Amino acid sequence: MTIPSDLDISRAAALRPIDEIAAQLDIGPHLLEPYGRQVAKVSLDAIEELADRPAAKYVLVSAVTPTPLGEGKTTTTVGLGQALRLLGHRSAVAIRQPSMGPTFGIKGGAAGGGYSQVVPMEALNLHLTGDMHAVTAAHNLLSAMLDNHLHKGNELDIDPQRITWRRVLDVNDRDLRSIVTGLGGPADGAPRQTGFDITAASEVMAVLALSNSLHDMRRRLGRIVVGYARDGSPVSAEQLRAAGAMTVLLREAIKPNLMQTTENTPVFVHAGPFGNIAHGNSSVVADRIAGRCSDYVVTEAGFGADMGAERFFNIKCRTSGLRPDAAVLVATVRALKAHSGNHRIVAGRPLPPELLAENPDDVLAGADNLRKQIENIRLHGVSPVVAVNAFPTDHPSEHAAIREVAEAAGARVAVSSHFLDGGKGAKELAEAVVEAASEPSRFQLLYPDSADLRTKIDTVARQVYGADGVSYTPAAARSLRDYEANGFGTLPVCIAKTHLSLSSDPGLLGAPTGWTLPVREVRASVGAGFVYPICGDMRTMPGLGSHPAAERIDIDEHGQVVGLS
Amino acid sequence: MTIPSDLDISRAAALRPIDEIAAQLDIGPHLLEPYGRQVAKVSLDAIEELADRPAAKYVLVSAVTPTPLGEGKTTTTVGLGQALRLLGHRSAVAIRQPSMGPTFGIKGGAAGGGYSQVVPMEALNLHLTGDMHAVTAAHNLLSAMLDNHLHKGNELDIDPQRITWRRVLDVNDRDLRSIVTGLGGPADGAPRQTGFDITAASEVMAVLALSNSLHDMRRRLGRIVVGYARDGSPVSAEQLRAAGAMTVLLREAIKPNLMQTTENTPVFVHAGPFGNIAHGNSSVVADRIAGRCSDYVVTEAGFGADMGAERFFNIKCRTSGLRPDAAVLVATVRALKAHSGNHRIVAGRPLPPELLAENPDDVLAGADNLRKQIENIRLHGVSPVVAVNAFPTDHPSEHAAIREVAEAAGARVAVSSHFLDGGKGAKELAEAVVEAASEPSRFQLLYPDSADLRTKIDTVARQVYGADGVSYTPAAARSLRDYEANGFGTLPVCIAKTHLSLSSDPGLLGAPTGWTLPVREVRASVGAGFVYPICGDMRTMPGLGSHPAAERIDIDEHGQVVGLS
Repeated sequence: MTIPSDLDISRAAALRPIDEIAAQLDIGPHLLEPYGRQVAKVSLDAIEELADRPAAKYVLVSAVTPTPLGEGKTTTTVGLGQALRLLGHRSAVAIRQPSMGPTFGIKGGAAGGGYSQVVPMEALNLHLTGDMHAVTAAHNLLSAMLDNHLHKGNELDIDPQRITWRRVLDVNDRDLRSIVTGLGGPADGAPRQTGFDITAASEVMAVLALSNSLHDMRRRLGRIVVGYARDGSPVSAEQLRAAGAMTVLLREAIKPNLMQTTENTPVFVHAGPFGNIAHGNSSVVADRIAGRCSDYVVTEAGFGADMGAERFFNIKCRTSGLRPDAAVLVATVRALKAHSGNHRIVAGRPLPPELLAENPDDVLAGADNLRKQIENIRLHGVSPVVAVNAFPTDHPSEHAAIREVAEAAGARVAVSSHFLDGGKGAKELAEAVVEAASEPSRFQLLYPDSADLRTKIDTVARQVYGADGVSYTPAAARSLRDYEANGFGTLPVCIAKTHLSLSSDPGLLGAPTGWTLPVREVRASVGAGFVYPICGDMRTMPGLGSHPAAERIDIDEHGQVVGLS
Repeated sequence: MTIPSDLDISRAAALRPIDEIAAQLDIGPHLLEPYGRQVAKVSLDAIEELADRPAAKYVLVSAVTPTPLGEGKTTTTVGLGQALRLLGHRSAVAIRQPSMGPTFGIKGGAAGGGYSQVVPMEALNLHLTGDMHAVTAAHNLLSAMLDNHLHKGNELDIDPQRITWRRVLDVNDRDLRSIVTGLGGPADGAPRQTGFDITAASEVMAVLALSNSLHDMRRRLGRIVVGYARDGSPVSAEQLRAAGAMTVLLREAIKPNLMQTTENTPVFVHAGPFGNIAHGNSSVVADRIAGRCSDYVVTEAGFGADMGAERFFNIKCRTSGLRPDAAVLVATVRALKAHSGNHRIVAGRPLPPELLAENPDDVLAGADNLRKQIENIRLHGVSPVVAVNAFPTDHPSEHAAIREVAEAAGARVAVSSHFLDGGKGAKELAEAVVEAASEPSRFQLLYPDSADLRTKIDTVARQVYGADGVSYTPAAARSLRDYEANGFGTLPVCIAKTHLSLSSDPGLLGAPTGWTLPVREVRASVGAGFVYPICGDMRTMPGLGSHPAAERIDIDEHGQVVGLS
């Protein structure tokens, strides 16, 4: 069986004018700013204007620990949103905006897939309304003002050796990871080692995602720490007088983008913070708006539940004050088989044929990961629903194995074929989600603001990751002391570790025990509002492969995009 | 007398919905893509759809050699467009998009000024529809694919020492002028000296401006030369398989942006090529569309007539096939006084008080520059109209002096007070332009494609600049030979020299004679379609001042932008 490419399905979808999509949410035209015919920005005035409407049920989509291929979380998010509409509920989907680096790098477009896509996929994957570029511009303006401050006399006495602020671009470019700027002569600045990250990894992107309003964003941008003075005190964007101009550059970007699915379900697409070193969730303002103009908001968090969901609960919900009502855990037969340790999946290579053979025992052998991720949802008082994202190569006995494990762990479970069947393939899942969300919410944060940073890290490591404890390098321990001395100790933590294991070692599958979380260094995104301990190598600027997706992307004789997926 | 700030005038303007502005041009809604409420992109389908309509009169706005302050060319362009409407003609204005680097650097917003502005100025100055960012993205994708090609085995045998392609960002950042990339280790590329230019200086921007269609842009992008192989042959973006993806990144950016003036005159804002090393004119496609849906298209070329107008005629019109009907030369009392050599004007400092005293003799003493620039328009067979851009500090005797010089040189002349009075202040100018444009066009290019590169350079230097001849460094002479051997000899030339003198020495005012144009090196923008000899230091990445405009830009308590002008 062959199904058309994502791009072809996207083009064939019967799109409705975006004001009709907004009308489904009772969002009036005065709150809409059209960008092209099929995308609109929604004014933040909506937050106040809709404040009296009843709150929607708030549903998170997370996953088991994924393979390098990903397990279809965005597709499930879209399919679930579509299915809720089929059941007669007003639903809205909220996701992150894809980064153009990977689009032209490995993977082509990313917008869900098959018959559960956000459309038009060209708009979603290419610039959209320019939010990523606005983040790039705001970030790099601060970089330029920082180096200019050094050049013009360094009144703040910034230590050039302790500058932490780099530059960003939305492109996969390994040669920009480590560079020396300011060469050429005295008129061209002063030599300094620095580098570029991909825009999604910018703290400005994390600020955009976590801000509750334009003015909240203004304050957070001002709090960004760019480095340290020679006396050790932190230097902020406010002190460099950059935060106002940065806010002005972001004044459109802070408004969520409204699109639609292949079945015309409203989708808020907003912000794209990097899951490696930031919280990896879509924006607070999008969820706040969506949460007052629908019955169900379905939102996605990056990576497995130990990463994205934990940060969704303890960083995003802590910041927004919103309380989730249910959490979907996407599981696939291939991921659980991989967690058995009997198979090896490599991105960009075909799946090993033996992985596709009927083998419910391997599914059961890898099920510890699913059990632990169910527990991770429960830890926060939220009802878990396991969504088996069905593939044509799956076998009924394997689905039954997942169902057995999930039910034994007390979770609801449903098999979903939204990729091939769109919303109607996710109806069983939607029914389970409606049930789960109807239970009274007992949502709780895992730790209070007042706990010290080591306690916060220790709590996540032990309770969520299943570690025996945490070890710190001397540098990491010193940073934690400095941050607490500087007043950053009340921030939540965003632990940067591999997403391919519950542990910090990507080779440890299933639900590893008997290990210690090694914190190599600790950094702070003071503006966004979290401290991030780094465990292992965290790459913040991807490279291109031997044959990047860009080589296949072009226009055809009619000017249409080809090769995007 | 005080008039409100540009930003306040912009906010107070009674804007009409952008579809009504388009309707003034008989551009139907099917050709419009709204971006927010007050800006729309115009589909390139308009070129074909409007092809049967009568061609508009095509009016260029240029200037005498300006002072470092600029002489109000954009303001005059806008005022003239407004005045033509008041006379009952359907007019359209076409200008470049401002670069955000200078907006946050020295000058704040740029959109004309006073009562002759393009509005809303926040939209114009901040991102607009993202075209600049699309150029940045396309340019840097090519950069990343180039370095990736070296990293993955260098199949094309590119000589790392002869790479000419750099990276770009739309920010003033001196520390990026000269950098070393690829540090860090073997997985992070290979060390190489390179740098960033401002986005306006990107060849991709010049390509965008000079393309006649989407497919023409695709071909030009493919022809971009990024460097040379070890055997000396040029290496193109096509060979790196980047041109298709670059085109896809630019597929919205190639559509002109429609805005309006403070008096609701339609304005096409499109492309922003750097006047220093590129042709510095707005886009061909905007002029092609505007030229079929109005009676008069008023378009602007950067710098004085020796620079912008010469390139408009010999590069832009050569490429588009459009023929200008009249050319306005903006002159100011202060500029002609400065050309007398008796006054010194420095950007960012107040005008010297003695410059403001009544002194028609100094105006006459500087008038050689005006005479030569009138001749430069005439050389191309186009009727010149001198527009005296009036300032409140001018004296009638000084205006009379300019009028005397212009009329003696056979040009029409009008005093214009559009800054203070909007369109009605430019009525006399509009009447003179209508007269001039009603004469039969005798437009001619200054040199044929078939002339060799030295002849082209020599022709512009002698006939337009008034040089005695041209000297070449050995490197420049070698480049010219190489370019001709590579088949680039049929391209027009875009001479990069100071805009502050007719000569290549910014200190030589008036109309200098007895000098030789020194060509230090020669580069080629093969994709855009010109060879550019460089005479003197051409900075392609500005820096920030001690107190950049960004420090004053912020939002107020209502979320409105403050400090942009």
